[in-house]
Amino acid sequence: MQTVNVALGERSYPIHIGGELLERPGLLLPHLPQPRVAIVTNDVVGPLYLERLRRNLAGAGVAVLLITVPDGEAHKNWATLNHILDTLLRERCERKTTLIALGGGVIGDLTGFAAAIYLRGVPFIQVPTTLLAQVDSSVGGKTGINHPLGKNLIGAFHQPRLVLADTATLNTLPEREFAAGLAEVIKYGLILDAALFDWLEANIARLSARDPEALEYAVRRSCEIKAAVVAADERESGTRALLNLGHTFGHAVEAGLSYGTWLHGEAIAAGTVMAARLSQRMGLLPPADAGRIESLLSRAGLPVRAPALGVERYLDLMGLDKKVEGGKLRLILLRRIGEAFVTSDFPQGELRAVLASTV
Amino acid sequence: MQTVNVALGERSYPIHIGGELLERPGLLLPHLPQPRVAIVTNDVVGPLYLERLRRNLAGAGVAVLLITVPDGEAHKNWATLNHILDTLLRERCERKTTLIALGGGVIGDLTGFAAAIYLRGVPFIQVPTTLLAQVDSSVGGKTGINHPLGKNLIGAFHQPRLVLADTATLNTLPEREFAAGLAEVIKYGLILDAALFDWLEANIARLSARDPEALEYAVRRSCEIKAAVVAADERESGTRALLNLGHTFGHAVEAGLSYGTWLHGEAIAAGTVMAARLSQRMGLLPPADAGRIESLLSRAGLPVRAPALGVERYLDLMGLDKKVEGGKLRLILLRRIGEAFVTSDFPQGELRAVLASTV
Repeated sequence: MQTVNVALGERSYPIHIGGELLERPGLLLPHLPQPRVAIVTNDVVGPLYLERLRRNLAGAGVAVLLITVPDGEAHKNWATLNHILDTLLRERCERKTTLIALGGGVIGDLTGFAAAIYLRGVPFIQVPTTLLAQVDSSVGGKTGINHPLGKNLIGAFHQPRLVLADTATLNTLPEREFAAGLAEVIKYGLILDAALFDWLEANIARLSARDPEALEYAVRRSCEIKAAVVAADERESGTRALLNLGHTFGHAVEAGLSYGTWLHGEAIAAGTVMAARLSQRMGLLPPADAGRIESLLSRAGLPVRAPALGVERYLDLMGLDKKVEGGKLRLILLRRIGEAFVTSDFPQGELRAVLASTV
Repeated sequence: MQTVNVALGERSYPIHIGGELLERPGLLLPHLPQPRVAIVTNDVVGPLYLERLRRNLAGAGVAVLLITVPDGEAHKNWATLNHILDTLLRERCERKTTLIALGGGVIGDLTGFAAAIYLRGVPFIQVPTTLLAQVDSSVGGKTGINHPLGKNLIGAFHQPRLVLADTATLNTLPEREFAAGLAEVIKYGLILDAALFDWLEANIARLSARDPEALEYAVRRSCEIKAAVVAADERESGTRALLNLGHTFGHAVEAGLSYGTWLHGEAIAAGTVMAARLSQRMGLLPPADAGRIESLLSRAGLPVRAPALGVERYLDLMGLDKKVEGGKLRLILLRRIGEAFVTSDFPQGELRAVLASTV
């Protein structure tokens, strides 16, 4: 097991990474202010891991309430959130009852948001079971739900007390979802760590085969980068925005097709190619780098062409992005592999050309 | 104009208190990160003050979006919250757009909660127009909505950037609402400041007649006490709980009768008498003090007997309180006028006797 610390003063917390961590309830106990938890999971992850976690916690004397919600991004909404909150209230969960998110990014975002607003805030723990959640969404305290007008538009910053990333749970992950997680790992290389990108080019086959050693390295390195970025800028007033490379484009893809048609990581992959192509057209990113990016994403099993929603529709959907400021769209662009920056200064014509190059 | 500062590090903010502050948009401008605001008000306060505030802000070059919601505690719910959020999204309000709550406690709680979760948090300003909001709910960052199972059960801590308490707006306040605000002023005296309680006994008639000088003193002193308590314990892990004197009983009254039948301050008044009577039965509070409390509340025009909901129903409703811990109810009780404490140690029989002494 390896541990990465997220340094946020009194809200600091550890990320434990390793195989079979679900068998070690002792890792959770020090973070529970009362021996009572509510585990939120979905109907896909639940049958695989819920009973094991429940049994291990119960064996350690912890009272466990189970809340199961439907699987999928389409359920990251008010209705599911209300179901969680209603259950917590009906079962009289208290301010010191800890919510545990057992699942992927949707479960983490929903559970974290429920924890943020239940009784004005209760503790929560992330137990991510997808690659995307382990390398990205479980770390950093962003929680929320989708809105018909856009993704994650309603939410809160609410840091977990602990992240428990059991890499053994990735063995049951469908290939498409595993690839979606790789999109975020590749993103870390692109924005901040050229060496990680090089490593990924050399090891993408081992990773896709879920070689345990390669997996633990990729998760740990991703968490280290994310933890450093979050520690420097918890509420995204500056550098944290870099983590959104490909996301403004990607969110438009997700919203335009209705959530859940494309996986988040798939939309981010296509969005990252769009950001790279715009950077290239602006004379910032060398064409060879743009080619390497598209090639690595493709080898990771990810889509590199966004769906043809139409330029106007794209612009409309992108205008709802949280990064819009003073009516101006802000994008994350690339200067080279390993160096990203935020800007609202780009030629509209080039943006339109990129948005038109869809399939 | 007088100014009280709420000292919360980087989240510190001023409370300006005085007459005709709505005419001074210059007080608001330094707190707006972009020249754009959304004012949330209700259909009672709006016709009285909205146009004045809108005109003054527009005159200072600020773009103003207006959002009007129905008046009353019964509308402090998901439906109204969603209406606010939907409007903000439809009008493409951004992370730097400031929400302004123009109204009483319900408007402040709703708007503050919307600001807490819109795009994971945007700035907001409180412009309280009721006595209750000026002396209590607009200060301290508690925001939220009610749930069919209890009051303020869903919410967030989200501090305003500024509180602008225009005491001239209190002149249009109906008598019943004015009295409800006095319940909270009396509370401050009871929990922390015997001198304020003495002053209230001597000046309650002047206050009820809305003598400007008495009013400004009562609002300022209340804000000073609240600001000090909040600065010492922002998230209510300790002394801040004292501010809830009478609230566990009062919330049960409100929920038991369905929200809005009694005003919050009215329920708190009856709840405060219950807390005082329980303190007296336990041999803590001298009977003479309990008598003075009941007498002052009564002279302020407030109810001092709670409705007869039945003991079991009261206990059930109180069990949903946010202050329940380890299944144990925690109450704020009084040792004397000016000294309150939190305890979960009280004889059930005495509590039942108090809950039975209703009308």
